[in-house]
This record gives sequence, C-alpha cells and structure tokens, in this order.
Amino acid sequence: MANFYVNTTEVVHKLPNNDRPKFYMFGVPSYTNMGDQAVSLAERKYIENEFPEYQYIEILEEDDDYAIPIVQEHLQPSDIIAFTGGGNMGNLYHNHEEARRKVFSTFVNNLTISFPQSIHFEDNEDGEIEKQKSQEAYRKNPNLVLVARDAQSFHRMQSTFDNPVIFTPDMVLYMESVNCKFNRNGALFVLRHDSEKVVKKSTIDNIKDILGNERPVKRVDTVLDEPQKITPVTREALFDSELELFSHQEIIITDRWHAMVFSVLTGTPCLLFGNSYGKGKHAYIDWLEQIDWINYTDETDVERIEEMLQQLISQKRHDYDVKNDFRQLRDLIKNNMHNKN
Amino acid sequence: MANFYVNTTEVVHKLPNNDRPKFYMFGVPSYTNMGDQAVSLAERKYIENEFPEYQYIEILEEDDDYAIPIVQEHLQPSDIIAFTGGGNMGNLYHNHEEARRKVFSTFVNNLTISFPQSIHFEDNEDGEIEKQKSQEAYRKNPNLVLVARDAQSFHRMQSTFDNPVIFTPDMVLYMESVNCKFNRNGALFVLRHDSEKVVKKSTIDNIKDILGNERPVKRVDTVLDEPQKITPVTREALFDSELELFSHQEIIITDRWHAMVFSVLTGTPCLLFGNSYGKGKHAYIDWLEQIDWINYTDETDVERIEEMLQQLISQKRHDYDVKNDFRQLRDLIKNNMHNKN
Repeated sequence: MANFYVNTTEVVHKLPNNDRPKFYMFGVPSYTNMGDQAVSLAERKYIENEFPEYQYIEILEEDDDYAIPIVQEHLQPSDIIAFTGGGNMGNLYHNHEEARRKVFSTFVNNLTISFPQSIHFEDNEDGEIEKQKSQEAYRKNPNLVLVARDAQSFHRMQSTFDNPVIFTPDMVLYMESVNCKFNRNGALFVLRHDSEKVVKKSTIDNIKDILGNERPVKRVDTVLDEPQKITPVTREALFDSELELFSHQEIIITDRWHAMVFSVLTGTPCLLFGNSYGKGKHAYIDWLEQIDWINYTDETDVERIEEMLQQLISQKRHDYDVKNDFRQLRDLIKNNMHNKN
Repeated sequence: MANFYVNTTEVVHKLPNNDRPKFYMFGVPSYTNMGDQAVSLAERKYIENEFPEYQYIEILEEDDDYAIPIVQEHLQPSDIIAFTGGGNMGNLYHNHEEARRKVFSTFVNNLTISFPQSIHFEDNEDGEIEKQKSQEAYRKNPNLVLVARDAQSFHRMQSTFDNPVIFTPDMVLYMESVNCKFNRNGALFVLRHDSEKVVKKSTIDNIKDILGNERPVKRVDTVLDEPQKITPVTREALFDSELELFSHQEIIITDRWHAMVFSVLTGTPCLLFGNSYGKGKHAYIDWLEQIDWINYTDETDVERIEEMLQQLISQKRHDYDVKNDFRQLRDLIKNNMHNKN
C-alpha cells in the first residue's frame, strides 16, 4: 500500500482530493542517517514556508513503486515532482540512484527537481556502468533540473548530464539556528563507519589525547542505532534532540558534513575532516568559510591540529546568512507557477 | 569621439547599420593587465563562437561615456548589453565600479549581463558607501543578471544584490589550450605589486633559494610595463606571447589568478598563493582542483612548499574540460534570443 505524508502527524493512503497544486517529494528516507533526515525535514519547511500555495506530499523511498502509478493518475500540469537531496548521487549507493532514475524517467512532463545533492561516480567499471544508466534515465526528462550543493558537484553534474544544473547550499542550511545556552562541557567525535571514511585512526587517537586531558570525550555517529526506522512523523523530535546534543558540547570533531551543519545551527565549534571524495570540504569552502567557529582540514600534524582546535574553541558566535543562496531554486519554482497557473 | 571595435582589426566611430542583433560589451580594458586583457579576448571568442547571429561590438572603458548615447539611439529589444568580467567588482577599484554602475543603470530595458566577476566590498566605511551606491545602481535594472566566477562571489553577490546571479568559470577558461612542446627550463615568479598582495617576501625568497639551485629564476608580473596601452586590435598577439612565455617554464610561482589560468592553458606546473580576499583560492577549488599540474596553498613552511613543488613538476599533462560549466550563461543568452526574436 502506498503511504503519503501530507502532513507530519499522520500517514494517509489516498491522495487528497482538492484543487491545490501538489509538490510531490519522492525518495524520503526512513533509514536512520540524521543528516538525510534533516535534509528531508528542511525540504518540507522550505516549500511550506516559501510556497504555501503548494500542498506538500512526501513519499518514503521504499514506497516509491507503489506511489508512482497513483501520482501519475492524479498529476496536474502545475504539480511539481522532486527527489530528495543529500550526498548520494552516483554509484556508491545503488538503491538511491535506482530510485532516482525511476522517478526522473517517469514524470517527464512536469517540472522535476533533483534537490541539492553532491555527486560521485567512481573512476572504475561500476562507476562507468552506473553513470551510463543514470545518463540514459535523466535524458528522458526534458523538464528535469538538477541542483548541486557544492561547486565540485556543479561541475561534475554539468560534465555528466545534459540537464540544466542550478547551484544552492545543502537544504539543512535553510533551517533556523538555535541558541540553547547550555553550559558546554565535553568533546564529541562524530565519525563515519562507512565506505566514505578516510581519516586515520591514529589522527583521531591523537586528537582524543589532546582534548581528553581536560574534558569528557564521547564518540557517536549521525547514523542512529535506535530507533530502526524514522518517518516524517518522528524525525523532527529526533532532529531537535540532535541539536540539543550538539549544544552541550565544547567541540565537535567529525568527518560528517551534516555534523558540521548541526554545529553551524547550534553555534558549536567544529573541526571537519574529509571523506573519500571531498563533499564536505567543498560545501564548507563554498558556503561556510566566513563562519568563525567551524573549520575544515586535511592536516595530520598534531601540533597544527591542536592550534586549530584552540582557535575554534575561543571563537564567539556571530550572524551568518545563506538564505539568499537558495535564490536559483526559488526562481525555478516561481517561474513554474507563473507559467503553469 | 566614440570608438567601437566591431572586429579586431580596426576601430570605427559609427555603429554598423544592419539588421543583425548586437552584443555590446562595455568596460573593455586598455590598461596592461594581461589577465583582464585575456578576459576581454575570451569574451569576444565566446560570443562569436557560440552565438554567431550576434554582431559583437566592444567599447573601451574610457570610451563608455561617449558611446552610451550612441548605443542608446540605436538600441533594439533583441540587443544585449554586457560589462566585462574580471576580479574588480567592489570598492577596491572605484573607476571600474563607477563605469559598471553607469552602464547597468542606463540600459534598463535590455538583457544586461555582468560577465563573470569576483566581488569584494571591504568591511570599512569606504566599502559600505560604495556598496550602497552599487546596490542603488544595480537595482534600477530589472533585466540585469550578475555572473559569479567562484562560489564565494556567488554567495556575496546574492547577499549584496537583488538581481539574479548565475555561476560560471572565469571566461579565460573558455580559451583553447596550447601545446608548444618547448624544452622547459626555468622558474618564473609572477607576482603582484598592488594592494591585493599578501604573500610574504621571506616566503618568496625561500622558494627562490629552493628553485634557483637548479635552474634560472625570473620575476615578472602579468601587468606589462610596455606597451602602455592595449586594445582589442593588439591584445591577441600579446596574449599569445604570454602563453609562449609560460610554455618555456618548468614551474610558475604566483599570486595572480590568471597566471594560474595561463598555466592551465599551457600545461605548465604552477603553485598559486592567496591574495587579500581569496579570489584565486576559490576559483581554483571550484573549477580546477582536478588538474594535477597546478595547486593552491597558503603554506609558509619551506619543507612543505618544496614537497608541493616537486610533486607539481613531476606531473603529466592530462585532459580537462570546463566548457560545459558555461551552461547557465549559454541558456541565459539563448532564452533572450528565443523571447525577443
């Protein structure tokens, strides 16, 4: 049965029967990566705040196949189709890329938006095969617009696909910042266990030694072990807890891009290390370099890292604003309303 | 008297009387910065190659005031107005910014394109005053589109102005690469003398010591002392000589963004240092990080710099392609043709 999240308190199995134009968001995660959950939360907030004319309807990635024929049946020319953003376009996560191809190659007559993504097709056989499959699928949709969340991905998308590409920050940077005013105590290591991991264990151990002398040190990942499934009904409370957890820390050490974003939103000092293909590095340099309490590095020299950490911990919070940077996305949706209504 | 460069062999004083739509490029440099000269050369090549329907007409910045009323008199709805790109939007070069304001606030009924720029208004009184003047002038033109050549400038333009902003590389990256196959010998230092300079003399001296042991070392700037003036008639030969000069070198050490671009075009190993506000750094990371024979650094440690230099000198030339990254600009001009013709 197809599940549609028309609001964030309940799930329905039929599409609402009214005259409002619909904004269908496919590929919504139910897995427990809090970065991807925050992306899907921010996408809903963005459309509901900026385009209240649209009725926003989310479809979990696992429900895409059931939902597609139902959406096809109800589809109106002014409706918009979208696929959720994140850091998984390419061949590292076959399941997400397959779901994306299916949506893009199905709804070829409506404005279709691939929400802000980074992209990485590996330079090997699997990368080449998967890239060709995606090129073939994306090419079928003359109304598909891709959104890149960093300049490296903007270049790669434009080199890989013929579709227009626009440039905005990661959607989670649309979320309001919070100021919990907790007494901060402790260092939190937020580290990957997955195939994108490149930071050496020895580097992490060295940083633990530096920070652990003066404060408690804990390690977590933004991928939760519990609960086993998160939906649009449950994600906002978990997102709020995540921001609360960050707001208690003196410093975050991470190789997760969204841990840096949570640090931005909570004013928490944060040092970000790289992943296997630079997605965090590029997003940081493109949008966040002017924020004093966060930094990116590939450094392995302990003394230099210690200097950066001390520097970050001593910074004061200040204003920043990237909301204007969603302008290309806003204009795209506005023009669709203008032309179709 | 107004000088119009309708082609690159002669200058005329009247606008050509024919039915072709016109592409007017204002602000063309006559000063001897070879980076800016290369930009204006690349702009002409770009429009003439990609949009041969348009008659391309260049106006030197010093002729703008004479030319504006004449262009106004002849202007047709399908004509496009543009102002040359570079790295001078902001308050560091008042003369260029004033010329830009005048053009943008005059031709408010035609598509007006600010060609790829980086932008920097200083955080001081002059910066604030000049920013307000520019905001007022740019706001008068509802058909003005700004083009940013790096993500930092994309963010800054969107934070500063209400006009739409698009994202492309520096125009000089549209130029064809050359392969002179000279025997390379020597290190060339290409260094600023201007207010944007930040690299320490001691760092430069250290690098000279490292490189000078094994090869001749020379210092130049991309701003030429002779000739005193360059025009669209004379610039291409000087640009070709510049590429030839680079093609003879084993390595380029520079704090000039366009010296890195000339190194890209000629396959010359190059290490780029920063300027006062990161324009080269950002453009490198956004578009060129995948090119093996060039690199950017803020490093001051001699051993680390030596390692980078050795690494660069040993690299092989390979293919790269950023031509697709001009897609947003192409679509903008195409849509204008489509709507107006």
